[in-house]
Amino acid sequence: MHDHDSLLAAYRRVRARTVALSAPLSAEDQVVQPSADASPTKWHLAHTTWFFEELVLGELRFDPAFRMLFNSYYEALGQRIDRARRGLVTRPDLARVHAYRSDVDARIERALTTGSLEPPARSRLELGLHHEQQHQELILTDIKQVLGEQPLQPAYRELSVSDTPRATPALAYRTFAGGIVDIGAASQGFAFDNERPRHRSIVEPFALANRPIVNAEVLGFIAEGGYREPRLWLADGWDTVRHDGWRAPMYWRDDGTLYTLGGVRAIDPSEPACHLSYYEADALARWLGGRLPTEVEWEVAVAEQPTNGHFADDDRFHPAPSTLAAGDGRLQVFGDVWEWTASAYAPYPGFRPLPGALGEYNGKFMSGQQVLRGGSCLTPRGHVRASYRNFFPPAARWQMTGARIAKDVA
Amino acid sequence: MHDHDSLLAAYRRVRARTVALSAPLSAEDQVVQPSADASPTKWHLAHTTWFFEELVLGELRFDPAFRMLFNSYYEALGQRIDRARRGLVTRPDLARVHAYRSDVDARIERALTTGSLEPPARSRLELGLHHEQQHQELILTDIKQVLGEQPLQPAYRELSVSDTPRATPALAYRTFAGGIVDIGAASQGFAFDNERPRHRSIVEPFALANRPIVNAEVLGFIAEGGYREPRLWLADGWDTVRHDGWRAPMYWRDDGTLYTLGGVRAIDPSEPACHLSYYEADALARWLGGRLPTEVEWEVAVAEQPTNGHFADDDRFHPAPSTLAAGDGRLQVFGDVWEWTASAYAPYPGFRPLPGALGEYNGKFMSGQQVLRGGSCLTPRGHVRASYRNFFPPAARWQMTGARIAKDVA
Amino acid sequence: MHDHDSLLAAYRRVRARTVALSAPLSAEDQVVQPSADASPTKWHLAHTTWFFEELVLGELRFDPAFRMLFNSYYEALGQRIDRARRGLVTRPDLARVHAYRSDVDARIERALTTGSLEPPARSRLELGLHHEQQHQELILTDIKQVLGEQPLQPAYRELSVSDTPRATPALAYRTFAGGIVDIGAASQGFAFDNERPRHRSIVEPFALANRPIVNAEVLGFIAEGGYREPRLWLADGWDTVRHDGWRAPMYWRDDGTLYTLGGVRAIDPSEPACHLSYYEADALARWLGGRLPTEVEWEVAVAEQPTNGHFADDDRFHPAPSTLAAGDGRLQVFGDVWEWTASAYAPYPGFRPLPGALGEYNGKFMSGQQVLRGGSCLTPRGHVRASYRNFFPPAARWQMTGARIAKDVA
Amino acid sequence: MHDHDSLLAAYRRVRARTVALSAPLSAEDQVVQPSADASPTKWHLAHTTWFFEELVLGELRFDPAFRMLFNSYYEALGQRIDRARRGLVTRPDLARVHAYRSDVDARIERALTTGSLEPPARSRLELGLHHEQQHQELILTDIKQVLGEQPLQPAYRELSVSDTPRATPALAYRTFAGGIVDIGAASQGFAFDNERPRHRSIVEPFALANRPIVNAEVLGFIAEGGYREPRLWLADGWDTVRHDGWRAPMYWRDDGTLYTLGGVRAIDPSEPACHLSYYEADALARWLGGRLPTEVEWEVAVAEQPTNGHFADDDRFHPAPSTLAAGDGRLQVFGDVWEWTASAYAPYPGFRPLPGALGEYNGKFMSGQQVLRGGSCLTPRGHVRASYRNFFPPAARWQMTGARIAKDVA
Repeated sequence: MHDHDSLLAAYRRVRARTVALSAPLSAEDQVVQPSADASPTKWHLAHTTWFFEELVLGELRFDPAFRMLFNSYYEALGQRIDRARRGLVTRPDLARVHAYRSDVDARIERALTTGSLEPPARSRLELGLHHEQQHQELILTDIKQVLGEQPLQPAYRELSVSDTPRATPALAYRTFAGGIVDIGAASQGFAFDNERPRHRSIVEPFALANRPIVNAEVLGFIAEGGYREPRLWLADGWDTVRHDGWRAPMYWRDDGTLYTLGGVRAIDPSEPACHLSYYEADALARWLGGRLPTEVEWEVAVAEQPTNGHFADDDRFHPAPSTLAAGDGRLQVFGDVWEWTASAYAPYPGFRPLPGALGEYNGKFMSGQQVLRGGSCLTPRGHVRASYRNFFPPAARWQMTGARIAKDVA
Repeated sequence: MHDHDSLLAAYRRVRARTVALSAPLSAEDQVVQPSADASPTKWHLAHTTWFFEELVLGELRFDPAFRMLFNSYYEALGQRIDRARRGLVTRPDLARVHAYRSDVDARIERALTTGSLEPPARSRLELGLHHEQQHQELILTDIKQVLGEQPLQPAYRELSVSDTPRATPALAYRTFAGGIVDIGAASQGFAFDNERPRHRSIVEPFALANRPIVNAEVLGFIAEGGYREPRLWLADGWDTVRHDGWRAPMYWRDDGTLYTLGGVRAIDPSEPACHLSYYEADALARWLGGRLPTEVEWEVAVAEQPTNGHFADDDRFHPAPSTLAAGDGRLQVFGDVWEWTASAYAPYPGFRPLPGALGEYNGKFMSGQQVLRGGSCLTPRGHVRASYRNFFPPAARWQMTGARIAKDVA
Repeated sequence: MHDHDSLLAAYRRVRARTVALSAPLSAEDQVVQPSADASPTKWHLAHTTWFFEELVLGELRFDPAFRMLFNSYYEALGQRIDRARRGLVTRPDLARVHAYRSDVDARIERALTTGSLEPPARSRLELGLHHEQQHQELILTDIKQVLGEQPLQPAYRELSVSDTPRATPALAYRTFAGGIVDIGAASQGFAFDNERPRHRSIVEPFALANRPIVNAEVLGFIAEGGYREPRLWLADGWDTVRHDGWRAPMYWRDDGTLYTLGGVRAIDPSEPACHLSYYEADALARWLGGRLPTEVEWEVAVAEQPTNGHFADDDRFHPAPSTLAAGDGRLQVFGDVWEWTASAYAPYPGFRPLPGALGEYNGKFMSGQQVLRGGSCLTPRGHVRASYRNFFPPAARWQMTGARIAKDVA
Repeated sequence: MHDHDSLLAAYRRVRARTVALSAPLSAEDQVVQPSADASPTKWHLAHTTWFFEELVLGELRFDPAFRMLFNSYYEALGQRIDRARRGLVTRPDLARVHAYRSDVDARIERALTTGSLEPPARSRLELGLHHEQQHQELILTDIKQVLGEQPLQPAYRELSVSDTPRATPALAYRTFAGGIVDIGAASQGFAFDNERPRHRSIVEPFALANRPIVNAEVLGFIAEGGYREPRLWLADGWDTVRHDGWRAPMYWRDDGTLYTLGGVRAIDPSEPACHLSYYEADALARWLGGRLPTEVEWEVAVAEQPTNGHFADDDRFHPAPSTLAAGDGRLQVFGDVWEWTASAYAPYPGFRPLPGALGEYNGKFMSGQQVLRGGSCLTPRGHVRASYRNFFPPAARWQMTGARIAKDVA
């Protein structure tokens, strides 16, 4: 969200964008579920709306059954459908979900216009908008799986792709001095609870790559047998490689092409590698002679970087090489691909979850996940910031995830 | 199919009925898949059409990719999508599948009108109609699972239900003498390959119940702890009861109601019990002091019975008590519920599969399944006959399956 | 058991043989369990003893906990350990199990000597001896899995193997006329309940091979891609081939050898193929242009055949070619390998289970299994007979199972 | 290991202790495997020996097949048996494994006596002794599962247990000031690679409990429905509770008793709770109003504490209340139970794995595990130290694991 938005304008803008993202899809596209991870588009449309109705308006008036259907994981709010069975819900149909959106939108807009929302509810409404932006990204990652796992691999929509061959930017490192640093979101302004409190940390001198790992490097890793060499992998990663038969990143095909939201295309060596699991990111970093950065290192490094990468607003929906000129001293760290860090997702010292049901928003996932930073080409511009902490389990690949290499500095 | 149909009239009638069965459903209803067993309606619409295009017209002209998408299990016809992933196919969408139906219908009708179909192709067209009738029943059983496993359990369509309480018909047995009998379909007229050749068999004297097991009996079984008493069950059945936590037939709810295609209703004690697995049918028969009949016994018993039960054409879509007057000496054995038999599905002596890919139609499923007889309230009238052999694995419950008790006669 | 045995002599002989079969094994060999199917030797030693104590003596005096530990599957006799966890039972140790055997032996012998056993108990004792012989065979099949699935594949004991190359006997068929036949065990003499009652059956003319399928034929099947060609397989069989990665019979190794109870040896083309599943037997028969016989056909064919094959008493523990001269009109149908039949395991008309807990001996397994006939090189001589019905699930391979081909006669 | 040991004396002492720990066990006890986690005693006896032969002597002379059988996870050292199949290895038998130990012991002692070991090999020998001590603890945890999951739950050996009722020590907190601290093992003296390098860290003020969570608190948690209240649990933890049906710590029985290595005993409320997963430790801490400490906090807090708890050398093999007097300002943090920390297992800044195959010793497990600190009543005295980092997955319960509560200090 941009700071200059009024809350009402922001609400209208965010809500309209969600609908726009679903516009290229048929009702059939929007109801199915390819895995427990990836939810149907229709579910996202309804769940984000339920969030406002339940947590801002506080009154389930449209259809009381929607709490059970469209609650995601809030145990405090009662029974709900199993995550893996969201794709069974053909009723309500898509039209009724749009009617639900309109009904709640009208009620929210009325409340905003009449000024009847108390400050706590306004805070939860602001949170609801950031929440909906998160689901905008999930709509794209999840529909990519819906379409990409079908035999015909249809495109989500036609995307403009440059045909000009691009040089793969050389890999260079920028060095950081280390020391005692302040990490996390300042106490003012919007941030999720998991970004706070801002706190001191110590970081040793390190270097960070000027760009993410690119496809050219993944192709080299594959050619040298990286997916068959256990010594490159974490033990859990190697188990996963064998069990799931991984031989390349997700959506890569055997014929030198990959599936994108614009359909099947040749693998472009210059592009940031995406749909990497943490295990692959870690193995690639090891193979390239480095390691993944910690989230503290990452946040230190980006402190003064502009957010100039590619975001969902660019309607590319696929990562692209840096727009910085070769030799530009800056790092392009935001957008394009989420960057796996070496840090397990854990509370900051003094972490306090939000009160009430919203306390489940972040805190209860603080085990078994790794932190990712920076946003991706599927993230709404303005949604991420330097302190933003995304998190996924180490085997997850359906997100727009890549990696950037770090090194110790002697 | 009725004998007096011309082939063209039969084609039009059967094809139209399939579309009519899908009419109450939204596009969303028709694309999802609740289990590997139950296919999407859209898939049924397309698969039955592909059958005519591939095996009658012999030319995949509409879209060559449809072979891979809509072949069910014919290994001889190449690669195909995994059965469990049929519910992912949002493209082609429903409209395109209807266009596919129209295109193939026009080509078939032209071929029939111009007389360009050779006799073997005409035979395969006739087979295709019986095949489509089988899928009409599956459309109903499968959409029942789609709708019935959703939290809101919506109705497929409104069904007229009698409110008049009905007496549960008394259980009586009719005795049969046994001897050397002829079993199976005669060599003339349509029958599936698994009904032939007609052959001699020996049957010992036996008795068969005048009606299927009814809900009143299932309620008694439950009340006496039948689902907790291993001695009533086959060993595999007991394993399934414990593993899957069965406590009642499928679609029964804890509050004395059950889900039907017309929505949730009170359990009517007088109705034939349905959605029983073979294991439950066997246990109920044992508890009631009898056993399931063999398929030979069943076929002997029904030789002179009319087909006067309830079929899909009655638009009831739920089994009902016999229409025969109490004391009527006849058995009402057709329609309402498929009746599990004690016979494993196996080839008749001298069985010959159909030539070519159609040889996979029946023969390759002759292991691990039990024979069922008689058709159900979801079967098109005229589709079944005394020699008709349906078959499902013993744990299957999503079909319209019940049972009738037999006894030895000393 | 031989008819001329007195019951006491038979008891001593059978019990001693069980111990002798376990003699080559260490205590460690006798405790572990490689799969839910294969039980530890120690468990067999104790379970067969418990059978006599519980069902003949009727008094659990040695250790009441043994009922729970060593009951196999009798639900009527209370709680018991999960089948898959038998290999956890290190206490009681082997010495105590031998003490248990001695204690029960002394009590049984005393009862027999003093004549205190009532006729029903004598019948159950006789059943217990046949039961123990069944477990003698299982001791061998199960220890073969214990040893054969270890990396070093040690021998159970040294076996004498002929080094003389043997010709593969030519495949020939003997024709049988068919007609109305009597099947099953006569009412006198020992037989299991599942062999009775003797009853009429109709069999059409058929031909049966002079010998089982041999390794030479399996090698041909493999060479022609039989394990990769779905059209040769039943649908369930093909699913199993793919899921379990079958490329050859169990215990075959990639280097042209196989594991036997005497250790690793070259594959001898002339030997009956063993460790075939029903699915493989069925596919091999189809590939060879025939089919598997029904159990009725098999029983008809062997009616006048001598039991002249190889049994466990020969201490070969591996099947060998027929001992009949080439051109001998007889079939060698007993011993060497159990022969899968096309018949699902089902009750005979008028079947009555044994009374009490023993009613679970056979009847409750009458679903999901196929009948095998004839005994094997691991079966005690004298244990099988023409009417003997063994049964295993179609995917089972750890038993000494092979097949013989039948054909229709026009 | 105690510092005053000569290497030879230490070698003899450690090796003898391992054998002594296995002495109460039969050969049968030592071969079986109750889960993929818990290895057979015999495997531990052989694996620790293989470690010396392969990595110190560098020559596999006794039996080359032992590399494949007894390598644990070193990918650099070639093929090995699946972890879950260690319990199948009945050959070599236990006697031969003892012969293997003797052979390697003689060769090591000769090398030490003659001074033929180069310094790197001496370092690896020292590592091998610490490695063997780790397996001494695993022998105890793993045999506890072997015996405790059997129906009869026999004791490992008789243990002296005080019958005097003990008061549950009151829960009190000691406060620590925080600041910049040095963490990790100093560069001199033995430590595992994962304890280094020693490095600066920042810790905020915190408080740490005077004792671990005790059974009285677990009983309260259970009584208040803690195992049924999702809001107390991490999301992954709650999934595990439901999936595995947890209702109490591992080895607790429904009748108010628990299984110990000394057999079944009443639950003593005053004892430290053990066999807790990380999820349970985290939920208990939340329920008690605190949280788990980070590993940095833990290490700061124990810096000046004596190692005065109960260790394996005490032959209690079960945790006991603190030996410190009430009001003693000190914490008893070593021994009794390993203490789960809130820290995911990750490399320290500048971490360098050991060279060669030993590089796999620790580093490749740095994902999906939590750090535990302090040792347990099954750990050899002298094996742990303040910087020692143990690690297990968050659902692991078969280890001697408990927890201590921390709190933020405002």
